[in-house]
Amino acid sequence: MVQAAYETFAAEGFLGTTMAAVAKRAGVAAPTMYYTFGTKVALLGETLGAAIVGFDQWRAPPPEPFEIADLLPVHSWWADLLAAPTARDALGVFVAQGTDILKRVGPLVPALHGASGDPEGQEMARVSEERRVETYRAVVDVIATKPRGLRRGMTVETATDIMLVILSAEAYQGFAARGWTHERTKRYFTSLLTEQVLATAD
Amino acid sequence: MVQAAYETFAAEGFLGTTMAAVAKRAGVAAPTMYYTFGTKVALLGETLGAAIVGFDQWRAPPPEPFEIADLLPVHSWWADLLAAPTARDALGVFVAQGTDILKRVGPLVPALHGASGDPEGQEMARVSEERRVETYRAVVDVIATKPRGLRRGMTVETATDIMLVILSAEAYQGFAARGWTHERTKRYFTSLLTEQVLATAD
Repeated sequence: MVQAAYETFAAEGFLGTTMAAVAKRAGVAAPTMYYTFGTKVALLGETLGAAIVGFDQWRAPPPEPFEIADLLPVHSWWADLLAAPTARDALGVFVAQGTDILKRVGPLVPALHGASGDPEGQEMARVSEERRVETYRAVVDVIATKPRGLRRGMTVETATDIMLVILSAEAYQGFAARGWTHERTKRYFTSLLTEQVLATAD
Repeated sequence: MVQAAYETFAAEGFLGTTMAAVAKRAGVAAPTMYYTFGTKVALLGETLGAAIVGFDQWRAPPPEPFEIADLLPVHSWWADLLAAPTARDALGVFVAQGTDILKRVGPLVPALHGASGDPEGQEMARVSEERRVETYRAVVDVIATKPRGLRRGMTVETATDIMLVILSAEAYQGFAARGWTHERTKRYFTSLLTEQVLATAD
């Protein structure tokens, strides 16, 4: 169902998507959609969550509220981040998986803008951005304690802000619109953030 | 009238703005709005143009079509760019005025996203982005020929793409959402782009 919702939101935007159309594409009855997700905004929120964790990883709406700190250990990249020997390796792990996530999230950006006309949609976007901020800050905390660490004068707070703006769906879409491939954008995000944020700018 | 339109689009978005509401705020009759601008999308396009050149500089809708190359010499910063002694000075001139423009354009971004549901709105966004690309490329062409110039291995094309993504309303809004002041964002855009694009990264 979330795969069908992803395709429909990406093609039709928020206003153009109906629960009935998603149910039809998924081959389920419309009441099943309402029973599983509740509202169209909640469905979009789950679809965004599935795009972030990966469609094959997605199981079902998690019990709310949850803490990002409880969720991070279940991500496979989190173990790689902790195991990385240097700040530069750790940043590489995060940017590589982060860019893959942005590729999946990008097509939902117009639907997310479309949903912001609705108070429930605004609240969903606010919560989702808050989780993104917490995740990035937790990652920068790990990177900062690795050998070499952050650039001189760079705080965890500033590094987090820079990562949030650069490693974003908007910037990813901007490079895609200029014809950059996924791999080129990933390499450039890695080199830009290494140079801007880390002590290891060589 | 464009000042009233700017305030209305910024507060109400595209769908929430009516020609009648803008006319009322501007203290003119509604038919004057239609006579001067034609459609709501055209009004948004003019409002965007006025936000770019500055509200005090705006006069009236220009005759269409026009060439960016004909328009650049009328911008006061263009002369400063040409007169700048080094690539670094030239980039500083462009980023300083560009960041000021992004501050004015930022509040219109939700209205521009809202207008993209309409074919005329999509076309307006496409033309406006095309002009932005041409302007940035013309600027990078000037910067590239100044003493020291671009970083080794950096083409005009790649430098233009990086400038388009970084010096964007989305990135400006991203830093503003993290609490960065206008001056801090301007300083950071200058240092980031100097380091990423120019040979003078010192």
